[in-house]
Amino acid sequence: MPSAFNPQAATDIYCLLFDQYETLDLMGPVEFLFRLPQSRLHYVSRGGGMVASRQGFAVQTQRLERLPENSLLLVPGGQGTRPLVRDAAFLRDLGAWLDQAACCLSVCTGAALLAASGRLDGLPATSNKKAFDWVCSVGGQAGWQPAARWVAAGRFYTSSGVSAGMDMTLGFIADHYGRSRAEEIAAHCEYIWHDNPADDPFAPSVFR
Amino acid sequence: MPSAFNPQAATDIYCLLFDQYETLDLMGPVEFLFRLPQSRLHYVSRGGGMVASRQGFAVQTQRLERLPENSLLLVPGGQGTRPLVRDAAFLRDLGAWLDQAACCLSVCTGAALLAASGRLDGLPATSNKKAFDWVCSVGGQAGWQPAARWVAAGRFYTSSGVSAGMDMTLGFIADHYGRSRAEEIAAHCEYIWHDNPADDPFAPSVFR
Repeated sequence: MPSAFNPQAATDIYCLLFDQYETLDLMGPVEFLFRLPQSRLHYVSRGGGMVASRQGFAVQTQRLERLPENSLLLVPGGQGTRPLVRDAAFLRDLGAWLDQAACCLSVCTGAALLAASGRLDGLPATSNKKAFDWVCSVGGQAGWQPAARWVAAGRFYTSSGVSAGMDMTLGFIADHYGRSRAEEIAAHCEYIWHDNPADDPFAPSVFR
Repeated sequence: MPSAFNPQAATDIYCLLFDQYETLDLMGPVEFLFRLPQSRLHYVSRGGGMVASRQGFAVQTQRLERLPENSLLLVPGGQGTRPLVRDAAFLRDLGAWLDQAACCLSVCTGAALLAASGRLDGLPATSNKKAFDWVCSVGGQAGWQPAARWVAAGRFYTSSGVSAGMDMTLGFIADHYGRSRAEEIAAHCEYIWHDNPADDPFAPSVFR
C-alpha cells in the first residue's frame, strides 16, 4: 500500500490512455487537475507512442513504468475498455499501478478495468449507467452503486458516465484541497458544478 | 459566402488547434459533435504537425488548406490566442476559413480570434467573462454581450469560457438537428445541459 495522498506535496498525475478511450472522460478531469498546486500531468500508456481516442485524434504518450510516491492515476472509459477487461497482461500492469497510486480516479467504464484487476473488491463504486449491466458482469467483487454521480472509497474515486468525471474530479479536489479550491477552479472554467455525489439524474428511475 | 449549413448532408468538422489552446474548450464540443449523423472530425492546424494544448499533451494535426462545402469550424480559446490576435498571417488564413465555413463555433477567447479577423463585425457575440476586457480590446466591431452563456448569430456561435462551449454545442445541435437529438446526445454522455443561452452565472452581477 502506498502512503496516503498528501495534497501539500508535489503530485504527479498520470493520465492513462488506451486505444478508443472516450475523449471527455479524460479531458474533462485533465482541465481541472491541471490547476492543482504543485501538480504535473503525464500522458501515458502501457506501450507508449501515439494513442487515438474514440473521437479519432492521436496523442503522444510515454510508456508507463512505475508510479512515484504521491501519484494520482486517472483512468478513462470508452469502447477501448471492452477488450482490455479480458487482457491479462494489461490487467496485471494496471493492478501494479493501482497498488502504487496514492489515489485513482476512474471515469465511466474505466471502473470496469479497476474491477477486473480485483482492486475494487469489497469497495463501493459506480460507472456509466447505460453500460452498467456490462460493468457488473466483468468480474471482481465491487459493491456497484446503481444511483451515484460518483463514489469515493478510500483511495478510489469512480464516476458515472463521461461528463460525471468532471463533477467527481471537483469532488476529489474539494475532499483533499478544500471546497474553496474546487469552487475556484470551477469558476475559472465557468463550470456549473453538480456537487452532490448522490444526485444521479441518469440512474434508472427505480433507484432514484 | 458559403451555402447555408445543411444538417441533412454530410458534414466535415474542422477542429482548429494551435499551441496553448485550452483543452476543454476543444474536447468538450468534440465529444458531442462526434455523435452527429454523417459527420467526420478533422484535427487541423495552420502548419500541420504536432500541436500541444495548454495542458501539455500533443496531438497530431493535418495542415488546414481549404474547407469543403457544408463544413463546421470549431475554434477554441486559451493562452495561445494572445499572440495570434496580432499575427496577421494567421488572421488572413483564419478569415478565409471563416468565409468558407457553413458554420463556426468558437469557445472562450476563441471569439477574440474571430473578432480580430473582422468576421464578427456587426454581430452579437460573447466570450470568457474573466478575459472579457481583453477580448473587447482586440479590435473589430463585434457587439459583445457581457451576460450570455452563448450567442447564436447566423453562421457564428460564440460561447463564454471553457465549459460553456459544451452548452453552446448542444444549443447548436438543437437549432440544426432538433432538440431531441441534443437531449439524446447529452443523456448519452450523462451531461446536465444548461440549455438557456441567456442564463450566465459567471457574468458580472451588474449584468445579471
